[in-house]
Amino acid sequence: MDKISKPYVIGLDMGGTNSVFGIVDARGEIIGQTAIKTQGYPDVKDYVKAGVEALQPVIDVAGGIGKIKGMGIGAPNANYYTGNIEYAANLVWKGIVPMAKLFQDALGVPVAMTNDANAAAMGEMTYGVARGMKNFIMITLGTGVGSGIVINGQVVYGCDGFAGELGHVTMDRSENGRLCGCGRKGCLEAYCSATGVARTARELLEKTDRPSLLRELNPKDITSLDVSIAAGKGDALAKEVYEFTGKMLGEACADFAAFSSPEAFVFFGGLTKAGDLLMKPLKKSYEEHVLGIFKGHAKLLVSGLKGSEAAVLGASALGWEI
Amino acid sequence: MDKISKPYVIGLDMGGTNSVFGIVDARGEIIGQTAIKTQGYPDVKDYVKAGVEALQPVIDVAGGIGKIKGMGIGAPNANYYTGNIEYAANLVWKGIVPMAKLFQDALGVPVAMTNDANAAAMGEMTYGVARGMKNFIMITLGTGVGSGIVINGQVVYGCDGFAGELGHVTMDRSENGRLCGCGRKGCLEAYCSATGVARTARELLEKTDRPSLLRELNPKDITSLDVSIAAGKGDALAKEVYEFTGKMLGEACADFAAFSSPEAFVFFGGLTKAGDLLMKPLKKSYEEHVLGIFKGHAKLLVSGLKGSEAAVLGASALGWEI
Repeated sequence: MDKISKPYVIGLDMGGTNSVFGIVDARGEIIGQTAIKTQGYPDVKDYVKAGVEALQPVIDVAGGIGKIKGMGIGAPNANYYTGNIEYAANLVWKGIVPMAKLFQDALGVPVAMTNDANAAAMGEMTYGVARGMKNFIMITLGTGVGSGIVINGQVVYGCDGFAGELGHVTMDRSENGRLCGCGRKGCLEAYCSATGVARTARELLEKTDRPSLLRELNPKDITSLDVSIAAGKGDALAKEVYEFTGKMLGEACADFAAFSSPEAFVFFGGLTKAGDLLMKPLKKSYEEHVLGIFKGHAKLLVSGLKGSEAAVLGASALGWEI
Repeated sequence: MDKISKPYVIGLDMGGTNSVFGIVDARGEIIGQTAIKTQGYPDVKDYVKAGVEALQPVIDVAGGIGKIKGMGIGAPNANYYTGNIEYAANLVWKGIVPMAKLFQDALGVPVAMTNDANAAAMGEMTYGVARGMKNFIMITLGTGVGSGIVINGQVVYGCDGFAGELGHVTMDRSENGRLCGCGRKGCLEAYCSATGVARTARELLEKTDRPSLLRELNPKDITSLDVSIAAGKGDALAKEVYEFTGKMLGEACADFAAFSSPEAFVFFGGLTKAGDLLMKPLKKSYEEHVLGIFKGHAKLLVSGLKGSEAAVLGASALGWEI
C-alpha cells in the first residue's frame, strides 16, 4: 500500500568529494538526480541546507515530499544504530555528526544511514542480483575492500553498528604480511583491493626480470586498470597478478562461508571490471578451499547494477525499510 | 502465558555413545533426567521408542505431556531447517534420518534439532552468561572446535542449515599448515582443540630438548589435560603450549569480530578448564589483533553452565522457540 501512496525513496551517496542525491522508484529506476560538493560546507548545517535546496526541484518532479517514503544515506563511518557519522577521516566534519537526524528534521521524512558496503548490499537485495535472497555476502573491491553481510534478510550490524569489515580479516599471519592502511598486517584489503592489485604487480616486477608490458610504466603509477589492460593483451605477468588476487579472494570467501553459509557472494567495484581474469581463479580457489559440506552451495556473482548508479540505489534501498 | 500452562521443555543431548534426556524449567533447572545407549538400536524407530519409554516416568513427574512446551535435540550433523540428521559419521544410522519428526510423532509436541555447538549457544542465551545478549559467538573447545553464532537474537543457520563452522577457518595458509580431520590444512580446529593442544605439546617436545614434566609420558598418550596439569605445576613448556593456543584463538576471534562484531565470545568445553592458562593469552592476543574500531567492545567469557548439564540445557533451549 505504502509503495502506491509513497512510491519513491531518496538515496544519498556521500563521498569525500561529491554528494549525489537520487529519487528512486520501487523497481530501482532513478527518476531524478542532483549533486553538491561535500567539501564545500565546513558547517554541516549548511551542507544539509544546500542538499535539501538542490533536492527540492527533483522532489517537485516526483510530486512533492508527500510521495517520498523515506531517505537512505550511504556514508563513510556511518553508524546505522545511531544515525551518526563517527570520526570520518575523509569528510570535512570532525567528531560525531548526527547526519540522519539533520536530514530527517530538514525533510520531514524518516532517514536511515549506513556505510557504503552495507548500502551496496541493500541495493543488491532490493534491486540487484541478490533480489529474493535472505543470506548473501556483498564484497566491494575498490580502493579498499568492504563488505555487507545479509543474514535472514537483514544486514548484520553487530553490537556496535560496525560489523562487516571483511577487508580486515588476516590472510597472511607471517612477518611478511603486507602492511594495511588500518595499521595491521596481512589484511585481505592489502591484497585484493585496487591498490593491492597494483602492489602485487609492482612486487612481481621487482622480484623477477620477466618481460611485461607493465615495464613500460613508471612502477609508482601502475594501477589495477593498467594490470587489467595488460592482462587483456595476453601479458603473462599481468594475468598472474589477477590469478594471485582471485586465488586469495577465493580463500577468504571460503572462510566466510564457514561463518554464515551464504547463498551467494556478490562482488562489486572497480576490480570486477577485470571480469574472468578475476572471477575464474576466484571461483576455482573458492571451490578448492571451502569446507566439504559447503561445496557448490554458494553462487559467486558480479553485481549487475551500473557502477555510476549503484551507490545511490544502495543508499535509497535503506529508505524502504524504515 | 505459555510458560505457565506449559512450564517445561525436553532436551536431548545425542552423542555417539549415550543419549541423555532432561526435562527443564524456564530457569534452567533440570527437574528430571534419563538416558539410553545411542548405539544400542540399529533401527532408529527402536531408538525413538526406547527414548520415549525412558522419558515417560520423568514426563509423569512433570505432570504429563500437557506440561511440555516442546523438545529440542542437539545432535551431530543435525540440520535445523529439515530436522534431519544427515550422514553422521559417529552415529549408527546411515544416510538421512528425520529425527525431529520421529520424536514429534511419538511425543505429540513440537521438536526442533540442531548441532551441539548451536545448541550450546541457545543454552547460553537462554540460561547462561549470554542471557539478554542479541549478538554473541559461542566457541566450543572439545575434541574439535565448534561454534554457534547468534545475530539479532537468532542462531545463524545460513542458506543450508550448516553455518557456523568456525573450527574450519584457515589459520595457517603455508605448506606447514597442520592437516585437519576435515582433510584441509591449517584449520583452527587442528590447533585449538583438545587434540590440537596435545599435538602442539608433542611438536614442542620433539623439536627441542627443553626439560618438561611431559617427557615422563609416552608422547602418543599426552592429552590436553596432561598439558594443563603440567602447566599448573609451573612447567614452562606446558605453559607455552597454552600460550600458543590462546594466542591463535585470540587471532581467530579478532577475525570473527570483523564479521559480526559480537558483544561477547563465550567459550565452552574441556579446554576452558585450563582457566587463565588459556584465557589470559587469549584475551591479550584478541585485543592486540582486533581491528581498531572493535577494540574493547567484546567480552571474552567462559560458560557458566555445568559441563555435565550444558548439553542437555542447550538442546532444551530450542524447545522454547518452537
